[in-house]
Amino acid sequence: VAKRLEKFKTTIFTQMSSLAIKHGAINLGQGFPNFDGPDFVKEAAIQAIRDGKNQYARGYGVPVLNSAVSERFKKDTGLVIDPEKEVTVTSGCTEAIAATMLGLINPGDEVILFAPFYDSYEATLSMAGGEIKCITLRPPDFSIPIDELKSVVSKNTRAILMNTPHNPTGKMFTREELNAIASLCIENDVLVFSDEVYDKLAFEMDHISIASLPGMYERTVTLNSLGKTFSLTGWKIGWAIAPPHLTWGIRQAHSFLTFATSTPMQFAAATALRAPDSYYEELRRDYMAKKSILVEGLKSVGFTVFSSSRTYFVVVDHTPFGKENDVAFCEYLIKEVGVVAIPTSVFYQNPEEGKNLVRFTFCKDEETLKSAVDRMKEKL
Amino acid sequence: VAKRLEKFKTTIFTQMSSLAIKHGAINLGQGFPNFDGPDFVKEAAIQAIRDGKNQYARGYGVPVLNSAVSERFKKDTGLVIDPEKEVTVTSGCTEAIAATMLGLINPGDEVILFAPFYDSYEATLSMAGGEIKCITLRPPDFSIPIDELKSVVSKNTRAILMNTPHNPTGKMFTREELNAIASLCIENDVLVFSDEVYDKLAFEMDHISIASLPGMYERTVTLNSLGKTFSLTGWKIGWAIAPPHLTWGIRQAHSFLTFATSTPMQFAAATALRAPDSYYEELRRDYMAKKSILVEGLKSVGFTVFSSSRTYFVVVDHTPFGKENDVAFCEYLIKEVGVVAIPTSVFYQNPEEGKNLVRFTFCKDEETLKSAVDRMKEKL
Ligand SMILES: CSCCC(=O)C(=O)O
Ligand SMILES: CSCCC(=O)C(=O)O
Repeated sequence: VAKRLEKFKTTIFTQMSSLAIKHGAINLGQGFPNFDGPDFVKEAAIQAIRDGKNQYARGYGVPVLNSAVSERFKKDTGLVIDPEKEVTVTSGCTEAIAATMLGLINPGDEVILFAPFYDSYEATLSMAGGEIKCITLRPPDFSIPIDELKSVVSKNTRAILMNTPHNPTGKMFTREELNAIASLCIENDVLVFSDEVYDKLAFEMDHISIASLPGMYERTVTLNSLGKTFSLTGWKIGWAIAPPHLTWGIRQAHSFLTFATSTPMQFAAATALRAPDSYYEELRRDYMAKKSILVEGLKSVGFTVFSSSRTYFVVVDHTPFGKENDVAFCEYLIKEVGVVAIPTSVFYQNPEEGKNLVRFTFCKDEETLKSAVDRMKEKL
Repeated sequence: VAKRLEKFKTTIFTQMSSLAIKHGAINLGQGFPNFDGPDFVKEAAIQAIRDGKNQYARGYGVPVLNSAVSERFKKDTGLVIDPEKEVTVTSGCTEAIAATMLGLINPGDEVILFAPFYDSYEATLSMAGGEIKCITLRPPDFSIPIDELKSVVSKNTRAILMNTPHNPTGKMFTREELNAIASLCIENDVLVFSDEVYDKLAFEMDHISIASLPGMYERTVTLNSLGKTFSLTGWKIGWAIAPPHLTWGIRQAHSFLTFATSTPMQFAAATALRAPDSYYEELRRDYMAKKSILVEGLKSVGFTVFSSSRTYFVVVDHTPFGKENDVAFCEYLIKEVGVVAIPTSVFYQNPEEGKNLVRFTFCKDEETLKSAVDRMKEKL
């Protein structure tokens, strides 16, 4: 294995999903729904396959999807963008992140990440030869230590990579935090890479794209995908929205990483993004019900539940149950209780910082969530 | 744009396909069929979507596809491999190439390419920080200058990247050439990355995987995909076959480039790979008919047609028509004749070497091929 990847292990999501199968445990680990995506999107994919939309798509996206992405971005942020020059369709948001790193980051560039962070951020930054500067979000509300953030910005800082709503904590960056990041970026000529794949799971609050703040669009890459919003995580359609000068680098990397993304799925994604508002409202309502089952259940079992649980994840403190760390707790939980959670230490540069916390997902049907809570009530 | 990608332009395939649309020209440029893939594969995808196979696949492939890839490899090469440890499913062969480079090549490692070569080879090698060592295949039969090949092998040589049958020339590496490469690799402890996406278009000869030569499997990454064999270039399902110690690096890179590949399309790909032999025979017969229409047509127009045209490409010498180089010829061909071909200079490290050659594809229905020939007969 090449040196750039030596330190990385099999992703925790794969590890835990395999263990779930092996032990017949209820999988509240990896974030994929155990219910299906909406029929109107599935039918659109079927129609595209039948209609012979089965050859290479244009590298940066089929025109109708680039347009649908732009229209949705306008609805969400008020910003008018050029679908031909500012949208790049990718094979999931994971590829959009890789293309952004490999397309825009040079060796020696520094990129600021907020721990806990999704593992591909660090791995793709390592592929690009960039340096990680890590700021830890402060429990219990996972707020940004703004002074510390200011202090790590240097003349080599090229970008801040942020994720809001945030995996694994469910935290949503506040308007004050977004303003602080924006000022810092504008003053120091720093880019923002903003992973917003959980934007439609902000629940009773409105998600704010940092690109919509004054002066920010021109320095922001907004990353998003179809999977979470449409419960089709396996379709792997993502996109990067960025001004033309940044889009160029992203498209170059994309064209050599995958060249293009599944054509029929892109047509279906375009149909999905044009869903009426009622679709998003119903999604939100469904997830709020699921969230309350899981959060109330976890509290009744005796966990301390952190943060306000946007996204479809919730982070809890497992220390009342006396295991030495998050990995040991998760092992016990799988083997003795029959429930899978994700240890959070893997999301930290310094694993010590995550050792009290584990993550559960509530992107499962209500019955599954209830059974998981019942198992924990009985056996923990 | 990051420095590693500065020298690369918009891929020629995208450029030429856009020009084709703009000028209403017949597109014999980019290699995608203008006919559809087989119904039994399309129906398998539709079934998978309907059956709710729509969430994240296992990162390295859904088990049934890993198995189908292994079975096909056994049929083709006689080699028995472990589908769980030696197959990685990727988002097209392009991603398999990127994952191989980023997963196995370190900065300073040298990789030998044969010019003309597909553009992503150099770009992904550049992403990995490797050094390109380039050997030019010798017209008219595009043979490998073995002595020259031997002379560029150094203690820093990590791999030879080869492509057989070969895009753009249609050349198939001979058994003698494969033996020579194999000896060289074994003697010097060098890996082979073998792109074999056109293996089923070897026509009257049998394709030979270099992995099947004695002592080679353990040092070979065999790269392949669904798109060419099943006329579904837009589905973007590829894979890398390699012994476990190489698979590890490829999987690590893959898991951070895209994480996983479209789930329903993977199920369909498994069905496709289990097609009866008759499917492959018919494919071959169809393409031989197409090839003969194009090759005879190009000859009758006055081109010198090179090589035996395996793959679905054919390379010709355009100099009888008096244009200064391949790019000028292709421009004239689009604008004045209404046919798109691909200039080959973009496939060479030294563009001068390709300036007499252009590439046509015959992955189009017979009517389209005949019209293109007619246009050239009339206007060239
Ligand atoms: C590949 S897992 C993607 C992210 C996610 O769903 C998770 O964090 O569980
Ligand atoms: C992205 S184009 C892939 C290869 C091919 O089809 C071509 O060389 O035209």
